[in-house]
Amino acid sequence: MATKHILIVPGDGIGQEVTAVGKKVLDKVAAKFGHTFTYDEALIGHVAIEATGNPLPDESLEKMRKSDAVLFGAVGHPKYDNDPSAKVRPEQGLLKMRKELGLYANLRPIKLFDELLGASSIKPEILRGADILFFRELTGDIYFGEKGRKNNGDTAYDIAEYSRFEVERIARKAFDAARTRRKKLCSVDKANVIETSRLWREVVQKIALEYPDVEVEHQFVDATAMLLIKDPKRFDVVVTANLFGDILTDEASQIAGSMGMLASASIGDGTGVYEPIHGSAHDITGKGVANPLASILSAALLLDISFGMKAESELVISAVDKVLKEGFRTRDIADSTTPADKILGTDAMGAEVLKFL
Amino acid sequence: MATKHILIVPGDGIGQEVTAVGKKVLDKVAAKFGHTFTYDEALIGHVAIEATGNPLPDESLEKMRKSDAVLFGAVGHPKYDNDPSAKVRPEQGLLKMRKELGLYANLRPIKLFDELLGASSIKPEILRGADILFFRELTGDIYFGEKGRKNNGDTAYDIAEYSRFEVERIARKAFDAARTRRKKLCSVDKANVIETSRLWREVVQKIALEYPDVEVEHQFVDATAMLLIKDPKRFDVVVTANLFGDILTDEASQIAGSMGMLASASIGDGTGVYEPIHGSAHDITGKGVANPLASILSAALLLDISFGMKAESELVISAVDKVLKEGFRTRDIADSTTPADKILGTDAMGAEVLKFL
Ligand SMILES: CC(C)[C@H](C(=O)O)[C@@H](O)C(=O)O
Ligand SMILES: CC(C)[C@H](C(=O)O)[C@@H](O)C(=O)O
Repeated sequence: MATKHILIVPGDGIGQEVTAVGKKVLDKVAAKFGHTFTYDEALIGHVAIEATGNPLPDESLEKMRKSDAVLFGAVGHPKYDNDPSAKVRPEQGLLKMRKELGLYANLRPIKLFDELLGASSIKPEILRGADILFFRELTGDIYFGEKGRKNNGDTAYDIAEYSRFEVERIARKAFDAARTRRKKLCSVDKANVIETSRLWREVVQKIALEYPDVEVEHQFVDATAMLLIKDPKRFDVVVTANLFGDILTDEASQIAGSMGMLASASIGDGTGVYEPIHGSAHDITGKGVANPLASILSAALLLDISFGMKAESELVISAVDKVLKEGFRTRDIADSTTPADKILGTDAMGAEVLKFL
Repeated sequence: MATKHILIVPGDGIGQEVTAVGKKVLDKVAAKFGHTFTYDEALIGHVAIEATGNPLPDESLEKMRKSDAVLFGAVGHPKYDNDPSAKVRPEQGLLKMRKELGLYANLRPIKLFDELLGASSIKPEILRGADILFFRELTGDIYFGEKGRKNNGDTAYDIAEYSRFEVERIARKAFDAARTRRKKLCSVDKANVIETSRLWREVVQKIALEYPDVEVEHQFVDATAMLLIKDPKRFDVVVTANLFGDILTDEASQIAGSMGMLASASIGDGTGVYEPIHGSAHDITGKGVANPLASILSAALLLDISFGMKAESELVISAVDKVLKEGFRTRDIADSTTPADKILGTDAMGAEVLKFL
């Protein structure tokens, strides 16, 4: 019986709708296991800009630092996407949060619930048994290097940077995880062209010596983008840089049937942040159709990783599994065989999961 | 009846085996249509380093400049991949060739031969009718910016750069192509984070005004990596930067069943270069099993784009189609239903194609 303080940071678009469901799941778990979870909320992204002019107000950051874990939604708004000259952007809030909280490791588990074999574009026989754990570096690379314009604005540049230390710490986390799984690690880079990738490979080769029981391979990012679809089962743990991780994990969401199913944990020096990998999805915002399962599964990761509550976490995952076995689907994971009365909206899907807790 | 001089640049690994077949196809086409094709060869990549110490000897570059088109193989060698500190690398030859010849537009058509619907990991109903033409920018981005180490080698950096002019010229080529197709263009960037992407989006938005008949969308690279698998049919022409294009086109090879089927054309200011998108594939080099169809289809692109020989090009493509219809496969595109005696090696597959020319 523990007492924990959880910060809810819904952010933009469907972030609001899905974290509300994730919070209900946390509440129910606390009641069931006799824990005391207290909550607060904080602003980030477009909603924070609208309210304060700042995509990550100091007050939000303070609240994050003081909480035991953060349940996060999404940030982003089409208004900025179509205005390349905007100076203040929702994403700056997200990036600042990652940097300030030292969230250098982003874990993205990709595992298909058996019931969703049919929901993917990929053939069931290729998918069955696929189980990948991505470690995406989250506070370095081209995301955080200097960027700007020169030649009167006619040339744009971005600097990608990695230090040995930054690669070492994420590599160790990935190797440690591989040890608890199938003992295979694939490090992804573009060492045939990029210098940061050459440093990356050098460091991973060195750290590998400390883990003789883990089988290591190095793949180029282009080949990996191909192999993830051709043969997802060949991967166990994958570790890669920030930008490559961004691209490859979105791609890999198709292995899990839908982006709407995928949770992620961002961890590092302090408070952990848990969030769906889907974005703000303004095209479906406010319609009540967003899939809340990624937020629910993010809550499960939060319980496991930040609170060490293994049984609680597993209960949540098995509740999701049961709801899928009952045949319930949100629109994104329904297929032509799903009866209309089994296609649920955000809250109704959340309610079904709560029944099994 | 034309006279043309073609330079064969096999490069490394299976590049040698497949370009030999591509050349035979060009020969047969010349004979059939009464053209005179003369040939020369040049070194690049690992084989050039071994022979001269230089991954792109001046002599090779001179020969390229003087030829009417180049049929290219691949470059790369595992020896360098596993040695991040190597100073001279095969890929430097490839990048230098692209830069020196001004090959700023890399066209990668992704189209599935009906016969190969079963060879892909993706479900046939998702694939049927998919037909994408990628325009990958090829002489800018993080590939060509300054790169190096600082802090005693403990920090690595790469600079990504784009100028307005570089984006304009590739965007125009892509818009022009969209006009001859389904009039849809998707421009891919990461404008929510990267400054070069913001310039990219700004310029594409501006050029779009010149093409009111083309429907334009802007997608983030992570979302695109997902959408290519989820719904490949939504794309017509896709234009993107060098690094994103490298990753997305390898991924998209799965739409065409195998990387072994995909040809590319690199064009720009002078001589065009035509090559398979697969690499040197040292794991199968020398075994005589490499799929020569990508090289043959590269020869078809060469005939069409550099020589304006539309009928000749179409004959080659239809010969490939017929061979597939006869049931012949190389190992990479065979599936469990392919009878053993229909699985051919590199030369035997080439011979079947020649029969239909
Ligand atoms: C919103 C965007 C800045 C972000 C990223 O690129 O990291 C998102 O795509 C993600 O993967 O969390
Ligand atoms: C070999 C390598 C440098 C090259 C690239 O990254 O451009 C290759 O992957 C390609 O796509 O032609």
